[in-house]
Parts: sequence; structure tokens; C-alpha cells
Amino acid sequence: MFTTLGSLQTPCLVVDKIAFLHNLSRMEKHLDAFNVALRPHLKTVKSIAAASYILADKQAGCTVSTLKEAETFAAEGYTNITYAVGITEDKLQRVLALINQGVNLTILLDSMEQAMLVSQFCSENECTIPCLIEIDCDGHRAGLSPKNKEIVTIATILESSGLYRGLLTHAGGSYACSTAEQLIQFAEKERSAVVAAASMLEEAGITTTVLSIGSTPTALSTQNLDGITEVRAGVYTFFDLVMAGIGICDIEDIALSVLTRVTGIKRSENKLFIDAGWMALSRDRGTASQAFDCGYGLVCDQAGNLLPGLKVTSANQEHGVIECEPGFTLPDVKHGDLLRILPNHACATAAQHSGYHVLSYDDIEFWPRFGGW
Amino acid sequence: MFTTLGSLQTPCLVVDKIAFLHNLSRMEKHLDAFNVALRPHLKTVKSIAAASYILADKQAGCTVSTLKEAETFAAEGYTNITYAVGITEDKLQRVLALINQGVNLTILLDSMEQAMLVSQFCSENECTIPCLIEIDCDGHRAGLSPKNKEIVTIATILESSGLYRGLLTHAGGSYACSTAEQLIQFAEKERSAVVAAASMLEEAGITTTVLSIGSTPTALSTQNLDGITEVRAGVYTFFDLVMAGIGICDIEDIALSVLTRVTGIKRSENKLFIDAGWMALSRDRGTASQAFDCGYGLVCDQAGNLLPGLKVTSANQEHGVIECEPGFTLPDVKHGDLLRILPNHACATAAQHSGYHVLSYDDIEFWPRFGGW
Repeated sequence: MFTTLGSLQTPCLVVDKIAFLHNLSRMEKHLDAFNVALRPHLKTVKSIAAASYILADKQAGCTVSTLKEAETFAAEGYTNITYAVGITEDKLQRVLALINQGVNLTILLDSMEQAMLVSQFCSENECTIPCLIEIDCDGHRAGLSPKNKEIVTIATILESSGLYRGLLTHAGGSYACSTAEQLIQFAEKERSAVVAAASMLEEAGITTTVLSIGSTPTALSTQNLDGITEVRAGVYTFFDLVMAGIGICDIEDIALSVLTRVTGIKRSENKLFIDAGWMALSRDRGTASQAFDCGYGLVCDQAGNLLPGLKVTSANQEHGVIECEPGFTLPDVKHGDLLRILPNHACATAAQHSGYHVLSYDDIEFWPRFGGW
Repeated sequence: MFTTLGSLQTPCLVVDKIAFLHNLSRMEKHLDAFNVALRPHLKTVKSIAAASYILADKQAGCTVSTLKEAETFAAEGYTNITYAVGITEDKLQRVLALINQGVNLTILLDSMEQAMLVSQFCSENECTIPCLIEIDCDGHRAGLSPKNKEIVTIATILESSGLYRGLLTHAGGSYACSTAEQLIQFAEKERSAVVAAASMLEEAGITTTVLSIGSTPTALSTQNLDGITEVRAGVYTFFDLVMAGIGICDIEDIALSVLTRVTGIKRSENKLFIDAGWMALSRDRGTASQAFDCGYGLVCDQAGNLLPGLKVTSANQEHGVIECEPGFTLPDVKHGDLLRILPNHACATAAQHSGYHVLSYDDIEFWPRFGGW
């Protein structure tokens, strides 16, 4: 039976399938030119149905941010998974269970303490857990600086137990870029960081098999992937206003939006109220530090066309407030009319919902998503 | 079997049951002095198990922010529910289904357009949906100003179909208060707004049965509830750093925290990394506009004792970064050690999780929670 937007309970997530598929194709084509594998980060979609489009081959590599993701995708037949968040000892039993199921699950660490814990665990449990060492390419988060000699010590500990596989970095700092030139420089910073660390290890007699880099802005900007074996990215699948603000996509490329209805109209105050508050939009204010602050999101009509001069300026739990900028007027809407809100950060907005209503030419599918750890 | 904190998968929510019960008792005692009913807002807990402590009597009134909450609590036997978000026409079928189940479900509106839609719906479906008119007491959100004559028009439309019950307001602006005196003034603003609107209606020959006000800060500050029939509040059950910043609770009263483990240590940079990022903590930065900005949360040891000078200064999806203020030093922790993060906003943080691990003297219970619309 044909489903219409008007039959959906609001607020809910809507995906423009054509834009989504276009985004996937753009990344694949970009990386094909370098002959480097894409290892998509599934933390953005957290959906079996969405993943089937992102990774047609279940033996191909993917990236996850939680063991729940690893377990869920493994249960669906994905066998090559990198868990790209620093490991702690308590999580090793779940890692082992996946490895015992035949999953090639690779974990991440950045200290001797972790390396020794994992080595000891593998020795006690007579197992092999492949490990990557996290490199900090931009002072953004975890990881070791590329020239830090501790990398050699950690790799040596891991290598002695047959656990060392390679190096991983993520240029989270690229989210602060605003020009194509900066993005190209950041992409090179990511590449050169792991290549330099791998060279240092090579001099110490340790071979690095995996050189993994990636963030959506750098992955789409890179002009050189020499020495790199794989690129990770996640938010390119949907894109969002933060990515548009960085300049790595256009507003029209944003495949994800929150469908909402008008619940109140205060024309004298230039305000519309909608049934999408922060529970539906998330509290993410990622565009606040960009040149154009989109508030809690920009506003489209139900067909997905941007309504100029409007944004969600504030959000309570189940109320959003739309205001218009000087020089613009509120659209001529009635109570109950449908609007669509473009998200600041697709990962955060999607996480507030249990699934996606996916619009293609002739129907609306539902793709469930999962959360938790 | 005895569960320990160390056996829990992190990140996860932890509730201090003693603090939670103390918070419930504090609100009940405060309102008992005025002999006015409390209609707790269940949007904070969204949990059947938690609600059983908040509302022992299932015939007593409660408040919800979504129809999913109304349906879930109705299925559990709660029969007196106010859905306190402006109604839209598409939601009336679900409202009707609940009323047909015997639930006394009251809805909210603030326009003639909505009043006519609801009246027409009730006429067509031969049903009675009790309605409250939303009053705007502080220019914070939706609702009509107390002296707006449209209130009389709306009440008249509703009254002619037997649907009018009363008036509701919420002093969301009280969240910007920082002194006891301001809070007392805001509480009086809430009270006088609905009392004034009810007087205007009385003069027009319309009797108001329900005069509903409330927010946690005003409910706990009020010194006069003359004319008021019920008080609504939700976050008082857990409290949070925003409430502590307003001065309506102490840090020790905060019953909710996120249990997390140390995933990385960069002592030279004064940074700890934890496995609670914004997915576990939420993106809520409600303390950013207060005198003391708590970042993404303050830090306690696993027993719940505040560690002075520390806060979560940044958050990625599954990484939190703890830094310490000048004059303080990082605690002597190891990889995998447990910490607890106090939330800025309990409603937002709780919404990121599927349940609460509830600590009492001798064991840990699990209270599931639900989400969605």
C-alpha cells in the first residue's frame, strides 16, 4: 500500500533515498580514483537496511563506534569490523565472543597499559585480537603523536603476541575547516601522520599492514593517498548542515531531515511552533561555531525545498520554535502543516529516532535503526 | 544475585535510589503544605518502574509530553493523563483510542483553529476530548497572554461542545533565574497568569475547573497557590546541574549520573578520555548560560563523590574528554577505572539510554525506559 508523508506520525526521520544513493556514489567514485578501500563508518546510520546500500559486500570492511554495532552487524553477516574507540579491559569478553564467531574484529588502543592488558587477555584466552594503534594527527582527541617513541614500544608488545596490525587516525580537527585548501592540508596531515609513524616502526623492524585514516571532510578532499590502505568516513552518507558549512556538500545533498507539523502560530511575534523539539532534533549545535549558525536546523517545505530566511531558533523537549530573519516573512502555514528540518549533525539527530522513513520515487520504506552499547 | 557497578557495561545510566526517593518526598511535602495536587511530568523518567514510585496511585494525575508516553502509561493502568503539548489534528485518532480505553486524557491548545478542529472531530466521532487552553505567563514559548480576549473565544467554542476544562501554563523562563527571590516572583507570575485568565472567563460566564501551573524551579519555590488546582513538575525527580545552577537543589541531590570508564590518559595535556561521549551524555549544554558552566558534566568517583576541579570539556560521539581547572590535578586513575558524570539536563541525558541501573543499599535494579513518539 502506498504511504504518504501525511500519514506519518510526527516528528520522525525522513531520508531522501536519491540523495543518499548519490552521496554513497560520490564517495566511492572519489576513492576509486586512488584505488584505496573505503571502510564506511556505520555509527551514522546504525541500520541494517541502510548498511546494505553502503556495503553491498559483507566481507568488505566497516567501522563501528560501539560493541553493540559490532554485534548487530556481525549477526547480519558482516565479518570485517574495526571498533574505532579506545578499548578497555571490561569490553574484551565481548570482543572475544565476536572473534569466536568468526568475525575479523580489530580494536584500537594508544597506551602500553592497554597493549599489555590485551596481550595478557589473549594469552590467557588463547586467542588473537588484532590491534591498531591510534595516532593523533591534529591534537584533536586520543592517540599518540606520530613521532612518539611509545608507538614503537606498544607495537613491540603487540607484535610479540602476534596482535599488531597497523595504525589509525581521524582528523576530527577538519570539522573546523572552512576552505577547500584547508581541507586538502588536513587530509595530507592525516596521511602523513600514519605514514610517518609506519616508517618509524619499519626502522624498528615492525611491518605495518593497515594504515587507516579518515573523516568525511578529508576523505572527500584528499589529493594523495600514497601509503594508505583504507579510508574511513560516516556522515557522508547523509551529510548535514555542519558539512554544508564546511563546504564539503551543498544543502541539496543533505539526505536526512526531521518531518514535523506546525503546532502553533504567533504571527505577531514572527514565530511558528513545531512538534520537533530537541528530542527529535537533538541538542547538537554544531553550526554555532561556523560562519552561518543554523540554530537547531534550517527549514524546508514538505517536499524538501529550503524555505529561505527560516531556522529553528530554540528547542524544548517537544517544542521547536521557528523564527525568520529580518527581510523574510513566515510562510503561509496552518496548524498541522508539514515541514522538514535539516539537521546540524546527522549522527546526533538520527540517534534520537528508532528508524528512517525512506522516500524514493513511488513509495516510503521504513529502515529500523538501533542504539545503545 | 548481587550486581556490582564493575559488572556493568559502560556507558550506562545510574540512579541513586536514596536521592531519587528523597527528591520525590521533598516535592510532595512542599506541595502538601498548600493542599494542592501534584501532577508529575513523566517525560523525565519515561519508565514504568520509576513512575511506580512517583505515582503510587494510578488514578492520580500525571503529565506527558508525547502520545507514546500516554499510551505506555495508560497500558500500565494510569487513567488520568494530561498531554501537555499543543495538539494537531493528525494526533486526534490516537487521543480518541485512549479515551475509548477509558483514559481521562486531557489535551492542550492555544488557538481558535485548533479548538474548531477538536470540536468538529468530537462531533464527528461522538466523543468528548477534555481540553485545556495554554497560557503564556512569561513569553517563553507557546500559549496566549493572560489578558488576550481570544482565550474567551476559544473557551466559548470548546464550552459549546462540552470540551472546556481549564487553563495550563509553564514558566519555562524560570530556568534563567539564579536567586530565590527571582524564583518566588516567577512562581507568582505563573499563578497569577492562570488566575487572571480564569477571572476573565468567569466574567464571560465560563467556569474553569483546572488551573494547572508548574516547572520544577517554581513548584519548589512557590509561597502561594491560591486558586491553583494542580502543579506539574518533572525534573525534580532526578535533578541535574542546571537545577543546581539555579540553586533549587544541591549537587548531592542529583540522583542521575552516567557511569563511564577511563579509555585514555594524557597526563602531559591534563586530559582523561572516557567512554561517555555525547551519545551517552547528550549534547545538552544547559549550564553554558549559567554562572558556572559545567561543560558536558561534572565528574564523580564511582561512589558518587564529586571530584573537584574536573569537568567533561568536550564530547565526540563515543569519547568524552575530562580536563581539570587550574590549581587542580587529575585524579590518579588507570585505564578502565570507573567514574560517574553528573548531567547538565536529566531529561536529555536519560533520553540517550534504554534504562536505569538503580543503586540502593544492597543491590542494583534495572528500570527500563522507553522513547519515541
